[in-house]
Amino acid sequence: MRQSELFSRTYKEDPKDEVSVNAKLLERGGFVYKNSGGVYSYLPLGWKVIRKISAIIREEMNAIGGQEMLMPALVEKKYWDKSGRWDVGIGFEVKGKEEKTPGFVLGWTHEEVLTDIVSKYISSYQDLPFAAYQIQSKFRNEPRARSGLLRGKEFIMKDLYSFHVSLEDMFRYYNEVKGAYEKIFKRCGLKSIYTTAAGGDFTFSNTHEFQVESPAGEDEIVLCRLCNFAENKEISKNKGGDQCPECQKGVLDKIKTIEVGNIFPLGTKYSEAFNLQFVNKDGKKAYVVMGSYGIGLGRVMGTVSEIHHDEQGIIWPESVAPLKVHLLAVGEMTSSLKKQADIAYNKLAKAGIEVLYDDRAQVHAGEKFYDADLIGLPVRLVVSEKTIVQEKLEVKHRNEKETKLMKLEEIIKTLS
Amino acid sequence: MRQSELFSRTYKEDPKDEVSVNAKLLERGGFVYKNSGGVYSYLPLGWKVIRKISAIIREEMNAIGGQEMLMPALVEKKYWDKSGRWDVGIGFEVKGKEEKTPGFVLGWTHEEVLTDIVSKYISSYQDLPFAAYQIQSKFRNEPRARSGLLRGKEFIMKDLYSFHVSLEDMFRYYNEVKGAYEKIFKRCGLKSIYTTAAGGDFTFSNTHEFQVESPAGEDEIVLCRLCNFAENKEISKNKGGDQCPECQKGVLDKIKTIEVGNIFPLGTKYSEAFNLQFVNKDGKKAYVVMGSYGIGLGRVMGTVSEIHHDEQGIIWPESVAPLKVHLLAVGEMTSSLKKQADIAYNKLAKAGIEVLYDDRAQVHAGEKFYDADLIGLPVRLVVSEKTIVQEKLEVKHRNEKETKLMKLEEIIKTLS
Repeated sequence: MRQSELFSRTYKEDPKDEVSVNAKLLERGGFVYKNSGGVYSYLPLGWKVIRKISAIIREEMNAIGGQEMLMPALVEKKYWDKSGRWDVGIGFEVKGKEEKTPGFVLGWTHEEVLTDIVSKYISSYQDLPFAAYQIQSKFRNEPRARSGLLRGKEFIMKDLYSFHVSLEDMFRYYNEVKGAYEKIFKRCGLKSIYTTAAGGDFTFSNTHEFQVESPAGEDEIVLCRLCNFAENKEISKNKGGDQCPECQKGVLDKIKTIEVGNIFPLGTKYSEAFNLQFVNKDGKKAYVVMGSYGIGLGRVMGTVSEIHHDEQGIIWPESVAPLKVHLLAVGEMTSSLKKQADIAYNKLAKAGIEVLYDDRAQVHAGEKFYDADLIGLPVRLVVSEKTIVQEKLEVKHRNEKETKLMKLEEIIKTLS
Repeated sequence: MRQSELFSRTYKEDPKDEVSVNAKLLERGGFVYKNSGGVYSYLPLGWKVIRKISAIIREEMNAIGGQEMLMPALVEKKYWDKSGRWDVGIGFEVKGKEEKTPGFVLGWTHEEVLTDIVSKYISSYQDLPFAAYQIQSKFRNEPRARSGLLRGKEFIMKDLYSFHVSLEDMFRYYNEVKGAYEKIFKRCGLKSIYTTAAGGDFTFSNTHEFQVESPAGEDEIVLCRLCNFAENKEISKNKGGDQCPECQKGVLDKIKTIEVGNIFPLGTKYSEAFNLQFVNKDGKKAYVVMGSYGIGLGRVMGTVSEIHHDEQGIIWPESVAPLKVHLLAVGEMTSSLKKQADIAYNKLAKAGIEVLYDDRAQVHAGEKFYDADLIGLPVRLVVSEKTIVQEKLEVKHRNEKETKLMKLEEIIKTLS
């Protein structure tokens, strides 16, 4: 991708109306655009990050048997009436101009919708267990949305739901999902902490959150760094400085965290509301046992930028970087510089390496280096009259200080 | 994918509340589920079709330099005020419970939003031209939604927008998009007719539609089958039976059609509304010239099922089929049958061929053949005691009548 053709561009100044680090960096880098409070557009570079995160999530969900589907955002009143969630106030109400009362709520979660769908197809224990998921925009009436991508009115979410004959089987799968989530966050460059949390009004027991330590976090947890015992402060009987109740050895830290995922053992709340029953091995009817499991993709992207940055900009982990290499043609754009940089771009592209090529003719070296740090691709390559003389390119990793000169063929070999 | 694990299943009976062929076939085959009038869920098989269509569209959009991004569905009132479209009545209004008046309309198109975004980044003729697109759920207050996937309240759309220094350059790109659209529909198995249509209230000249001939169509066009002259009946001065005004040779047919795509020369309507100006080569300010270009993905899927089916079910073109092969284990599920069918499934999967494997133990042969025709994957493979004896599999293409016996290795060779 040629930077001269990219319609977004970078900004030196922090946006005036943003307080969070992630929003400042992502807006300045041209990854997102703020349309309204809590409502963002993903610009081409930002959308590439979301697509990388989606691909990782999809791989791990498919690996544990998740079936991908898509449910609507428009959720009719009848669904929420059955579960009693119409009045929660968290949903946006939707109505056509000619209608007196809203007919839909915008889905902020899809337990109701999927339970209803599934009741058409499930009748026997032989139809269970299974799990289905979607990656979709969700909506939440969030009056104070000031944390950039961490808390929005509209946000992209992966929501997985599982269906079982028994609590035992549900918890077996719950544990599989836990493993898949740990892989996902690790692959995205995040160190997640598996944290026990409150059940809320729609689960029958404790739930679990995947928390990432960050001063930008809106949550607080107590954590034993020795045995990984972790509880959300909201439910914990322990406080920072206490002895760990689990291993009896460590001392609990109280830390700020960002919740990047959560998993809920739902039990039979929704299957009872939607009369989702199955006939078990003994020929008797029973309610299906359910679990639900969520990850916010924009929130993962926001968290990555909160965790991985320095004064100059973002430092994308390779797995979720929009592209792998930033190739800069530096210096006066003579025909020989242009030619050599074009050759490098074409050879890298041919080798299947994703390159952002800063081919802009009237932009000074300093600005190109500034942009490369702000955008934060993992590898920076420089072509200049100086490197051309040596028949090499200058290589620098975003997370390292040293630069070195290497032949293009060597570079391609190490990057492929 | 094992059919025994797929949570959806097929139905023999037409759904009671559907009149359109596409909705009947797609619901019976387990591709979609109707949540409300005009609101559908894509079940795992149906979602695979949408993903195939997305991939084709994405390839062709990228090939003409389209930059993928994502804009929000929540579009604030300020956007529509500027263009004067708030009162069109086509949009769903959105409000939080505590709010007295709606703050958002659900986007049914994104000219306003993108023009606003772009005005942050574009200032010179050197920033032009460029084009950006998204694949996203759109919303439209459609009181009579009775055509299944052809007309919905919520629908997935690809919308591309282009930005230019002049009308001339816009029409140059308009023609490129026309070519890309023709490729997309052809690749999806649809014969599209490039049709001149009315401008509507937000374009300055005629627009163009891509129409597919079908008795299910809600549009009517006049068409010369000799020279491909085509006009939407709404604007045509000609009627069926008239001599073609273009080639003066053919006779015009009046036919029913489904509109699967449309392209609009927007001119400067939106750039004027949002003050999107650029400095041209002479140092003077001018308004950016725009075009917009849409394809409904669900509508393409619905149209494919309207065009490609017989009495037994859908006949998916290979390019958009959810999977390529339907492998049936037919007969009493003995250990030898199961073993041979499993081997075939694993070898096909290993060769990278997408297989739906009907491994259901207690389902009779007749039902498996019935399902295979209804679901309509391009190639049906049968393993039975009879084929095992011959060390072969029975092969049948969904769009052919003959069956033949072939060795697995040969089959893999022809399918890879």
